Amino acid sequence: MSETLRVIAERYSCRDFEGKPVEREKLDLIAAAAVQSPSGSNRQPWEIVILTDKTLIDEMDAEGMAVLSEQEDKSVYERFMERGGKLYYNAPCMFLILQRPGREMDTGIVSENISLAAAALGLGNCICGMARLSFDSKKGDAYKKHVGMDGEYEFGVAVLVGYAKTQKAPHDPDMSKVRYL
Amino acid sequence: MSETLRVIAERYSCRDFEGKPVEREKLDLIAAAAVQSPSGSNRQPWEIVILTDKTLIDEMDAEGMAVLSEQEDKSVYERFMERGGKLYYNAPCMFLILQRPGREMDTGIVSENISLAAAALGLGNCICGMARLSFDSKKGDAYKKHVGMDGEYEFGVAVLVGYAKTQKAPHDPDMSKVRYL
Repeated sequence: MSETLRVIAERYSCRDFEGKPVEREKLDLIAAAAVQSPSGSNRQPWEIVILTDKTLIDEMDAEGMAVLSEQEDKSVYERFMERGGKLYYNAPCMFLILQRPGREMDTGIVSENISLAAAALGLGNCICGMARLSFDSKKGDAYKKHVGMDGEYEFGVAVLVGYAKTQKAPHDPDMSKVRYL
Repeated sequence: MSETLRVIAERYSCRDFEGKPVEREKLDLIAAAAVQSPSGSNRQPWEIVILTDKTLIDEMDAEGMAVLSEQEDKSVYERFMERGGKLYYNAPCMFLILQRPGREMDTGIVSENISLAAAALGLGNCICGMARLSFDSKKGDAYKKHVGMDGEYEFGVAVLVGYAKTQKAPHDPDMSKVRYL
């Protein structure tokens, strides 16, 4: 079986990372996969910001959790608290995809290239839309400035990357969602 | 080098297909890769419709080109005419991703899984947002009904798949879009 098909089949959303740093060589390979993504009319409407400062990621995590804890509906906050209370699951690295406004589909493509490249390199990964919360927190404006969200580029999505502490099975593929015509 | 990283690096948008059909076994493998995609809260907000009726695809191509030809700005129409006058580049197969409204990011992820699975199997592929035009054509309502766009599911994007007649180099990865923080 093709390694690519196996990586796609076995990839799962990691929610429990070892905190230890990822080798720079591996991050460079993942970054290359990100910018090799196809995009509408090849406009490449993205910037890839790689955060490897674990102290900063942990601080952004706490700020995001604080936003969640203040939401009227506590169900999401409680789900994260049951899973260990960490929005970023102790990940040592965040690939932040900034996008030109409205380019969600291109961002989705990039996020999957990052995830599959990380999985191919033996790294856990998780596409994390909740990272938006850190930028909505009371320190959000400072974070936006730090990462370069300047109006031209906005939050797209984040991909958490690191060595998995706990491995999981992927979701069961639902072939009933496929129809031949 | 990992095969997955090589497939990501070498994948290109195919714009010239041999018309010959793709083996059903390969289509099944690609379909499995599609539904193995991650999605927000694992909601899997998609349906995958696989069109293999080349006569229908060619008719949808002609209808889409007719829509383009009637647009006030003729530049896109002229670009397609210069490339051979075919919206779908003679592809024998279209993976149509239907999505729940607003789920463009999930659709982007699925489209990349389909593209990479096809590339890993030696097939040309092209993510084709222009396929929307066929559903905007005067036969659009009939096509929508045929493929099952019923309001619950809307057009997401299409991925054209087939054997490449002409191969291309991928775009140059732009590493200036990557920043470490």
